[in-house]
Amino acid sequence: MEALVRANTGFEPSYGKDSVTARAGDLIRQFLDADAEVRFLGSGTAANAVTLAALCRPFEAICCHEHAHIRLDEAGAPVFYGGGLGMIGLPGAAGLIDPAALIETLAMSDGASVQSPAALSLTNTTEYGAVYTEAAMRALIEPAKAAGLGIHLDGARLANASPLFDPKAAARMGVDILVLGGAKAGMTPTEAVVIFDRELARRFDARLKQTGQLPSKSRFLAAPFVGMLEDGALIRHAQHANAMARKLAALSPFPIRYAVQSNAIFVDMDEAAHARLHSSGWRVDRMWDDTVRFVCSWATTDETIEEFAAGLRSAA
Amino acid sequence: MEALVRANTGFEPSYGKDSVTARAGDLIRQFLDADAEVRFLGSGTAANAVTLAALCRPFEAICCHEHAHIRLDEAGAPVFYGGGLGMIGLPGAAGLIDPAALIETLAMSDGASVQSPAALSLTNTTEYGAVYTEAAMRALIEPAKAAGLGIHLDGARLANASPLFDPKAAARMGVDILVLGGAKAGMTPTEAVVIFDRELARRFDARLKQTGQLPSKSRFLAAPFVGMLEDGALIRHAQHANAMARKLAALSPFPIRYAVQSNAIFVDMDEAAHARLHSSGWRVDRMWDDTVRFVCSWATTDETIEEFAAGLRSAA
Amino acid sequence: MEALVRANTGFEPSYGKDSVTARAGDLIRQFLDADAEVRFLGSGTAANAVTLAALCRPFEAICCHEHAHIRLDEAGAPVFYGGGLGMIGLPGAAGLIDPAALIETLAMSDGASVQSPAALSLTNTTEYGAVYTEAAMRALIEPAKAAGLGIHLDGARLANASPLFDPKAAARMGVDILVLGGAKAGMTPTEAVVIFDRELARRFDARLKQTGQLPSKSRFLAAPFVGMLEDGALIRHAQHANAMARKLAALSPFPIRYAVQSNAIFVDMDEAAHARLHSSGWRVDRMWDDTVRFVCSWATTDETIEEFAAGLRSAA
Amino acid sequence: MEALVRANTGFEPSYGKDSVTARAGDLIRQFLDADAEVRFLGSGTAANAVTLAALCRPFEAICCHEHAHIRLDEAGAPVFYGGGLGMIGLPGAAGLIDPAALIETLAMSDGASVQSPAALSLTNTTEYGAVYTEAAMRALIEPAKAAGLGIHLDGARLANASPLFDPKAAARMGVDILVLGGAKAGMTPTEAVVIFDRELARRFDARLKQTGQLPSKSRFLAAPFVGMLEDGALIRHAQHANAMARKLAALSPFPIRYAVQSNAIFVDMDEAAHARLHSSGWRVDRMWDDTVRFVCSWATTDETIEEFAAGLRSAA
Repeated sequence: MEALVRANTGFEPSYGKDSVTARAGDLIRQFLDADAEVRFLGSGTAANAVTLAALCRPFEAICCHEHAHIRLDEAGAPVFYGGGLGMIGLPGAAGLIDPAALIETLAMSDGASVQSPAALSLTNTTEYGAVYTEAAMRALIEPAKAAGLGIHLDGARLANASPLFDPKAAARMGVDILVLGGAKAGMTPTEAVVIFDRELARRFDARLKQTGQLPSKSRFLAAPFVGMLEDGALIRHAQHANAMARKLAALSPFPIRYAVQSNAIFVDMDEAAHARLHSSGWRVDRMWDDTVRFVCSWATTDETIEEFAAGLRSAA
Repeated sequence: MEALVRANTGFEPSYGKDSVTARAGDLIRQFLDADAEVRFLGSGTAANAVTLAALCRPFEAICCHEHAHIRLDEAGAPVFYGGGLGMIGLPGAAGLIDPAALIETLAMSDGASVQSPAALSLTNTTEYGAVYTEAAMRALIEPAKAAGLGIHLDGARLANASPLFDPKAAARMGVDILVLGGAKAGMTPTEAVVIFDRELARRFDARLKQTGQLPSKSRFLAAPFVGMLEDGALIRHAQHANAMARKLAALSPFPIRYAVQSNAIFVDMDEAAHARLHSSGWRVDRMWDDTVRFVCSWATTDETIEEFAAGLRSAA
Repeated sequence: MEALVRANTGFEPSYGKDSVTARAGDLIRQFLDADAEVRFLGSGTAANAVTLAALCRPFEAICCHEHAHIRLDEAGAPVFYGGGLGMIGLPGAAGLIDPAALIETLAMSDGASVQSPAALSLTNTTEYGAVYTEAAMRALIEPAKAAGLGIHLDGARLANASPLFDPKAAARMGVDILVLGGAKAGMTPTEAVVIFDRELARRFDARLKQTGQLPSKSRFLAAPFVGMLEDGALIRHAQHANAMARKLAALSPFPIRYAVQSNAIFVDMDEAAHARLHSSGWRVDRMWDDTVRFVCSWATTDETIEEFAAGLRSAA
Repeated sequence: MEALVRANTGFEPSYGKDSVTARAGDLIRQFLDADAEVRFLGSGTAANAVTLAALCRPFEAICCHEHAHIRLDEAGAPVFYGGGLGMIGLPGAAGLIDPAALIETLAMSDGASVQSPAALSLTNTTEYGAVYTEAAMRALIEPAKAAGLGIHLDGARLANASPLFDPKAAARMGVDILVLGGAKAGMTPTEAVVIFDRELARRFDARLKQTGQLPSKSRFLAAPFVGMLEDGALIRHAQHANAMARKLAALSPFPIRYAVQSNAIFVDMDEAAHARLHSSGWRVDRMWDDTVRFVCSWATTDETIEEFAAGLRSAA
């Protein structure tokens, strides 16, 4: 927020040519240890949709986890942006795609009557709080690249994957496009689109403009990244949130479904208990896998965890 | 084919203003006992896609059977034509949608992050040769219409649904758009798009033109319908095909999965037997439900059935 | 900016259910003296595109001024959002559509091979700083509505049209959708989409979500409107900008092309003078009509005007 | 028509794997003296739209003549197929693009707010009956290819361009995709899509399927090409039509606007004369350039020309 107010002073050229945008791009390239084109968008949905559309033609398909946010929770945004592209949902525990399922899909021959894979989309951390290690991600990226697919990484919560996953690994494994999340990391709404493959970046601003995603005042979207990367807050805040999730897991009277690797925990909770929790003022959502999710943020305190754990005990 | 050659004589106005197109439209309205706008298209995929797009906006969805042809076998054509619309696959035996599954889907509240239902697409006869009776279809259409959905009927094999389903029932149950199949009924490639709701027909020719589906010489697509409706061949040929399927079912050494209600039978056959059948020269396809399908046509003879049954016995 | 910082305090529900968004909606309804659904978007391009797509099907067209921003300067955003819709450019002085040209276009019969008009888009103030009075706008809206067209008003600079045009006139003339500009009025990037026709608002949030335009933290986009409507700054700042433009016009050594009715002036300036002006540090753009445009804002001071006028004299 | 009836005998594999389709492809490669992928579509509108979409992304544009059929007469089909692509209309006499206008357009720098050129579409013979010679076409193709554009040739009337233009020149000049017309050459509705660049052909059948343009019974669309290429009728009929047009031009009492180079003539005719001609039973259309067009076909006889010329004299 401070960086944002600072960005409001003085006159700056518009459409991303300003010094704040340039500084944020440099910090992100440094954070990822890679050359890349960087753009800032105000919406995670749009950031994923516009980048997936760059990797897949309308008569082709994106492979992703069957519960991927892009497939279930964005009202078909990638399909719309991609002019009708298909989305192939693959199974796997805790939101991690099963490599065997991917390989089987890639092995199916191209047919005229189906939308064949053109890209692989991974989410780290996953929708269920799991973290792909570099080795686990490689087991998916390598066969995908061998089959000619482009690689998309939804990093809305990439900071929370650290330290199990090093953000610098994305570029060296051949990720083509990364969406690095700001909003879920505690910023005002902003996401960084990081395009490692310069060929894909050709006329990207026209693509953004046509989709209504080229901000005239990019510095307002870039500023939070400057603020949180300059002093290391992006990772520091994520580590705090992860620690709070581990603390909450230790206190939960409800069974934890998946290993707690980031800032969210997923518990089995029957409807009656869920209702009791709601009526005591705590709002938590049921997920596609029927678990109930608790998410911790940079702003979550020990007190909040203890208070919430007490609420859980009452509801249980 | 004779009707087609006849359509080639004399000069006729183009873009559907000719007498053959007019005559075919009249015969179809009579066949369906209903007022309707009728157009002729050269592709069943396009006929379904363009009509589904008329019933559903890009951020909404079509409800259909999970194995519906429009969902699995058309390379995303309805999604492309509909600018990114969603397709919700519903379960049910033999390609017949389970009414409880439909009602459950309709009951889910409209959310901003999902594509909510705007239309119901039914297929009669279904992809697995089953026939919706009028009552069975009503059990789906009524809740759908109560929820404000438009109704689409994929009638690529509607003639084969007779006599279990009366084609005249479509209009009286409130079907909005019917695609009446020609190609699968033995015609050269042609499908009739029948629009019962005149409001939906507004500027439909511009819609067809923009999608590359407004034939300049409509009479070549309309003529086969004239030929096969004037002398009752449409139903007569379908009845013959259905009879051949029943005969084949009686002779099949492989277990029949579904009741034989139209011109196709679906059997359980292991890979080894399937391979033996192929190597003896019979090409039959494995379906999404893992059955192997045999389809009979107006041209199938008793001799072919017996010969094929012998082939099946050898393969078994 | 103050309102924005204030919006950052406390916890609020997301996706537009917060109190800031509600308050901003109320203030806008009051400002326009009309009932309406209101949404806040971060991009003017998107706000226009998503609303035009709601008024026009892909095989239809939008009528607008031939130099309209939506037609020339948004990389085809309305066409993309509208799945391929057409844009019919109409002539007229100073960005004001000539009513005779509109009426002639409406009189052309619907043909299958053209995209016929489904909506009229007006811009007030226009791209050339002119203002439609209520009577002038009525002369366009009435024939358009009689022909069944929906009405879209691009109000990126609506505040600057005051007092020649009363914002309250939009609803009573039958405008269906208004985009009320924030960014050009001095706010951080935000535009209000105002939907007067509730039927058009059905599932609008899913439409926004699919196009990547449903902000998770709507309060950051709504807050500037609260700030600038509560104390009348929206109109007050616009009046200031308009006064500065009049002052600049009086001092300009270059001939003024159009009557100065809002916050911009358009002058005839040859390439050599334009180059001299640039090299002295003033960056101003040449427009589609070959004029050079100077825009004043709420932040423009008397001193800036005098300094710039001196620059103009040197360049002349 | 004979070839069509012949194609109806025997059983053949579907979806373009049949011997008639293979034979037609060979004859077309021979006719064009080039290697290429060939597909047969039932609609010229679709053939142009699907191939233009293969050359241009939604945020880019096609350069074509301002009166090109693809731009004015197909209800936005290329825009729809291309997901919102732009069409830049270039001026030039008789439908021939002015090379200076093309070069000027190519010289404009890529901007984020416009759709920049990605492909050039040429029509030979043009909408006004003119023929590009190989040299004239080269003057457009060379700068376009130098700027990275793909080349599309609308050859709906390519046969009529002979002998001024040799069809074999298309491939050697670097045309990427040619649509070779059947319908306008006297066939039942069919067009051949000829893809010289094999990379562009990747997954083309899925593209066709998704757009509803993959015929299940390709042989019916391929057969007319077999019939008319085997015995040279394609060129012979076109030459006949061209000769009839020259004869008509010699007899026309109305001034001929353009040099008669193919099978159509374009005359200046006032509304009163046009009305008299219509009322005497001759239906001819007024074009975008305000001329009235007369088109001759393979079936036009000397007697028809004389009869029509008499009608023209009465109307004059």
